[in-house]
Amino acid sequence: MASIEILDRSSMTGRLYEGLEINPGETAIIAIDMHRGHLDMSVATMPTKPEDAERVIHNAKRALDFARSRGVPVIHVILVYRRIPGLGSEGMTQPFWRALHELVTEEDRLTPGRRSTVNGHNLAGSPGTQIIPDLLAPDDYVIDNKKRLDCFHGTDLKALLETLGVKTVCLMGINTNTCVLNTAFTAFNHDYRVVLLSDCVGSMYGDDLHALGLQNVARCLGWVVTNGQLVEKMRAASAQRAESKLTAEKVAR
Amino acid sequence: MASIEILDRSSMTGRLYEGLEINPGETAIIAIDMHRGHLDMSVATMPTKPEDAERVIHNAKRALDFARSRGVPVIHVILVYRRIPGLGSEGMTQPFWRALHELVTEEDRLTPGRRSTVNGHNLAGSPGTQIIPDLLAPDDYVIDNKKRLDCFHGTDLKALLETLGVKTVCLMGINTNTCVLNTAFTAFNHDYRVVLLSDCVGSMYGDDLHALGLQNVARCLGWVVTNGQLVEKMRAASAQRAESKLTAEKVAR
Amino acid sequence: MASIEILDRSSMTGRLYEGLEINPGETAIIAIDMHRGHLDMSVATMPTKPEDAERVIHNAKRALDFARSRGVPVIHVILVYRRIPGLGSEGMTQPFWRALHELVTEEDRLTPGRRSTVNGHNLAGSPGTQIIPDLLAPDDYVIDNKKRLDCFHGTDLKALLETLGVKTVCLMGINTNTCVLNTAFTAFNHDYRVVLLSDCVGSMYGDDLHALGLQNVARCLGWVVTNGQLVEKMRAASAQRAESKLTAEKVAR
Amino acid sequence: MASIEILDRSSMTGRLYEGLEINPGETAIIAIDMHRGHLDMSVATMPTKPEDAERVIHNAKRALDFARSRGVPVIHVILVYRRIPGLGSEGMTQPFWRALHELVTEEDRLTPGRRSTVNGHNLAGSPGTQIIPDLLAPDDYVIDNKKRLDCFHGTDLKALLETLGVKTVCLMGINTNTCVLNTAFTAFNHDYRVVLLSDCVGSMYGDDLHALGLQNVARCLGWVVTNGQLVEKMRAASAQRAESKLTAEKVAR
Repeated sequence: MASIEILDRSSMTGRLYEGLEINPGETAIIAIDMHRGHLDMSVATMPTKPEDAERVIHNAKRALDFARSRGVPVIHVILVYRRIPGLGSEGMTQPFWRALHELVTEEDRLTPGRRSTVNGHNLAGSPGTQIIPDLLAPDDYVIDNKKRLDCFHGTDLKALLETLGVKTVCLMGINTNTCVLNTAFTAFNHDYRVVLLSDCVGSMYGDDLHALGLQNVARCLGWVVTNGQLVEKMRAASAQRAESKLTAEKVAR
Repeated sequence: MASIEILDRSSMTGRLYEGLEINPGETAIIAIDMHRGHLDMSVATMPTKPEDAERVIHNAKRALDFARSRGVPVIHVILVYRRIPGLGSEGMTQPFWRALHELVTEEDRLTPGRRSTVNGHNLAGSPGTQIIPDLLAPDDYVIDNKKRLDCFHGTDLKALLETLGVKTVCLMGINTNTCVLNTAFTAFNHDYRVVLLSDCVGSMYGDDLHALGLQNVARCLGWVVTNGQLVEKMRAASAQRAESKLTAEKVAR
Repeated sequence: MASIEILDRSSMTGRLYEGLEINPGETAIIAIDMHRGHLDMSVATMPTKPEDAERVIHNAKRALDFARSRGVPVIHVILVYRRIPGLGSEGMTQPFWRALHELVTEEDRLTPGRRSTVNGHNLAGSPGTQIIPDLLAPDDYVIDNKKRLDCFHGTDLKALLETLGVKTVCLMGINTNTCVLNTAFTAFNHDYRVVLLSDCVGSMYGDDLHALGLQNVARCLGWVVTNGQLVEKMRAASAQRAESKLTAEKVAR
Repeated sequence: MASIEILDRSSMTGRLYEGLEINPGETAIIAIDMHRGHLDMSVATMPTKPEDAERVIHNAKRALDFARSRGVPVIHVILVYRRIPGLGSEGMTQPFWRALHELVTEEDRLTPGRRSTVNGHNLAGSPGTQIIPDLLAPDDYVIDNKKRLDCFHGTDLKALLETLGVKTVCLMGINTNTCVLNTAFTAFNHDYRVVLLSDCVGSMYGDDLHALGLQNVARCLGWVVTNGQLVEKMRAASAQRAESKLTAEKVAR
């Protein structure tokens, strides 16, 4: 399998970046599965690489603090599973996860080089279901009934975004190539402007699939931006708004 | 950007393949956007590479003919757009597609090295909306109102799968990393067993994203099999069924 | 069972009517199952009462013509069923309809006093699936893959409404207490302003359930208006818009 | 408006009742909005009539206890609203509820003869959001993020029903003609067998709409049964199952 040459599409993505506007008044941050079950090595049942956890938490905190300072709502969406008598976790009806559970050892599952378990992952009441405390603020919104990969599937995320008047979603969290990518697809399908925060995502599946997730969003369905670019775009939108307000006031005099 | 090293997960995927069963009685083939708008270079408005079109059509025909011979239903799902007065195609409300249309030239869009257009893609009544004739049989099912990337979004695909008693979906079509991958995600979220037919998919976005689409399904949510493996697994299921029927008859005597 | 006293809520509904605005620029008419399968006695497989069919067609034509003259889009949504080998129509997986089919004679089913059949209703290609010609104009939108009672379920109605920028839906069609009421519920749940056109709905189930449908919408989830009131409200919105445009022009001078 | 004559369809519904099977192994009870916000007069913000609350709680407790004794899962679904800065409750984006809030006094709203408020109803953390303690058992499932009328809309109810292998849903709760009826419609659309427990539902909107809700389910989409009939049907299914097990054992000897 070896290696894959990545196509250079910077001329297209560069032009798209120039035209991007992130208006804080119509934007929300969606923080996906930033819980201890992925990010706290002491309890994680599906751990990322430790260095990814550290990087993502550090960068996400900065992005979230900045966003909150601009009045941008933050919505956490996390997976939590009930225990079902005779079945195990609610994840066990998914044939792929069940096959993994039955056929493959904990050492050789989704998280290469680290043990993991679907059946024991993020059961209701377990410490894994806690959002990383540094990333949670009192006014954040929390949706804690995600059951599969898509943050929209079986949750009230769509309703909440409509209630908040959101047009642009900025995605962060775990994993770049599954829950984040799947949520990017569905947000795209619902006609949201999709922005992926590249400093604030990571994948427990491997660096290659993390890179895929970024490439796939940037070249097929949205914008991939760094924390620095997020700040730049939000400041530009605010400045533009202030300026047009000023102009309006001048005209009104 | 250069190149990405692909992680070797063959020990995990090998075990999963061994355990895979594809029972024809509970399976459907979903053929995704196998229309002239992607695959016929004379009219395509979002063309794949010509050699990909040839390969995919050739292989898909073989897989479909085999599946039909086993009584497996074939469901075509294709994108067709209405023209909306004052807007253009129904695709133009997606901010990413609109930005592409407004900011990037036809030469530098989604299809590297080939011209393409969202606004002129697969308008109702245009030749691009025709399914490749070689791939369509009289008893196939056709769903022709897909509007975005996911075959389930805004269609009656879920209802049809339930009506047909399907538990396993075999996906083929265009593009590996968008409509096929997005449909794989949603099928996963609805607890279907997801099988991707690697000989019968391709991507207009580049070989790298095609390859990463395959990796993503194989390592995170389902099974990726060749045509030869599809045949092997379906024959095995039929043989097993015949055998257990025989055993039952012996017992009943 | 005998009779039910209807509660007088006219003080509430009167006030709500006063506050109602129907802005043609944000409105669509949804015409529900206005096909020959309900409304043309010569082919109907689930007929309304003949006099209801006549009344509804007559009034709906007037409302539709007026709406079109104001630029309001008209969306027809109709039920069409595939034949599924070994099953019958796609309706046969619904346990209630299957029970009706198996346990109750054609003379004693959903349509009191008139024969009807679920299994033979609106099969693809049959005359019942044709929209009443008088009610269909060339620029109308048609969604012809409804499978159950709700016009949103398994269709792209939501996507189309969003593409058209619709906030207010005016519902007409058959049956007041099932497809129309169910669609009213879902439109309500999606935060549309729901308006039921009382002159243009009817029920094959009986006059009592028709009256229920009207009462239920008016007192719990939306507005019920006559054709005359629809015209009045649309004219008022247009007049108000013309006036505020005039004022703006005066100010700008 | 006076009164409505109810059509006698007992010959049809009688036959359907004879054919009804409620197999405890494939059934769930869905208890809808049985919270203090409707049923506890001391805190209710949308109260039913006090005598309805008493009747429904009393009967629902008996039905739930019986169902639990047969191993039938109980799923509570309740509405809970976040407060949104600058808006009020999450209900305030629904145009009908907003119009009620702005145009009609608390004395003349949805609950005739009793004060009620949408904007103050079932805010997160308020006592109204508590399930009536007598109706809640430790092993019951709770879904507490309903936002509109339909228990399926924006919740994981569908996923939970599939996980539990449910084919038949028995509905109880408040209000017969809105949340219960809307949930009955959606359950019907998803091909569940819909059973309405007539002793365990009530409506804050009036006795007429309660009665019409029962009629609508019984004549168009499912079965309406008393507590006594529920017990009878569940016992019959268990007896039949025991008998066929016995027969199988005899054959196997």
